[in-house]
Amino acid sequence: MQVEELKNVSVELIETAEAAYLTTIGQDGYPHTRAMLNLRNRQQYPNQVHLFTQHQDDLMIYFSTNTSSNKIRQVESNPRVCVYYCHPEQFHGLMLSGEIEIVHDSEIRKALWNEGWERYYPDGPDDPDHMVLRLYPKLATSWYRASRFEFSLEDV
Amino acid sequence: MQVEELKNVSVELIETAEAAYLTTIGQDGYPHTRAMLNLRNRQQYPNQVHLFTQHQDDLMIYFSTNTSSNKIRQVESNPRVCVYYCHPEQFHGLMLSGEIEIVHDSEIRKALWNEGWERYYPDGPDDPDHMVLRLYPKLATSWYRASRFEFSLEDV
Repeated sequence: MQVEELKNVSVELIETAEAAYLTTIGQDGYPHTRAMLNLRNRQQYPNQVHLFTQHQDDLMIYFSTNTSSNKIRQVESNPRVCVYYCHPEQFHGLMLSGEIEIVHDSEIRKALWNEGWERYYPDGPDDPDHMVLRLYPKLATSWYRASRFEFSLEDV
Repeated sequence: MQVEELKNVSVELIETAEAAYLTTIGQDGYPHTRAMLNLRNRQQYPNQVHLFTQHQDDLMIYFSTNTSSNKIRQVESNPRVCVYYCHPEQFHGLMLSGEIEIVHDSEIRKALWNEGWERYYPDGPDDPDHMVLRLYPKLATSWYRASRFEFSLEDV
């Protein structure tokens, strides 16, 4: 299968998966996985779609999370992560891996913001407990049609 | 919330989640996540339910997989893993972590075996490419009703 076709099915999966599973490596030496809001899901986050239209090729992703969460302490000490998307009933999976960054940019915090998040971040997008993470993945692994494929996303 | 109640909702999640997400740490230093058949799902695997009735307290889990897979090489070099279960629409998640073991026991391979798996393992349960992994988790992290809980499973 051609990388271009794999990328297309990967983008489709990212844009429809119900959640994104982010795994960090803890200071305890164990991997730590948790579900995250999948801000690239077009149906769940229609107001954010425009943020990703330039990233159909590099598969860049954002997460909004709590500054006080364990995952922030973990990525500060080890930025190597993977993010997994899946439609289990179709045996279709995608793992993106690379080094995640903390993004200090009020414009991005505002662009990712959704109505109702005041419940988590009372002071709005710039609440000190609201933090944005960004991953430009280096490597993608795709499970599709009973096969496993790897493709590089470096130098895209 | 009491540990006993958390365990009950955790068992319910394990027994109904569509897939189990297993994360290993690769020799490359990155976490690697993939969906696995959730053999504790009672509806999908009714013939295996009896294998787990003694394990409602310690949350022991089995995986069937290919001996030739990357994950086997990874757990041989680093057995520290986590397994994540999720009902994303309910914001209910469970992470189990500990050191996974390779199980060389023909009886267990046969007990886990399902009709149709000849497609993956032509020689049946004892096909050299069929391997069983077992995790007795040490630590559980539960996301339930908008809170995060941790509880130990050591010395259960």
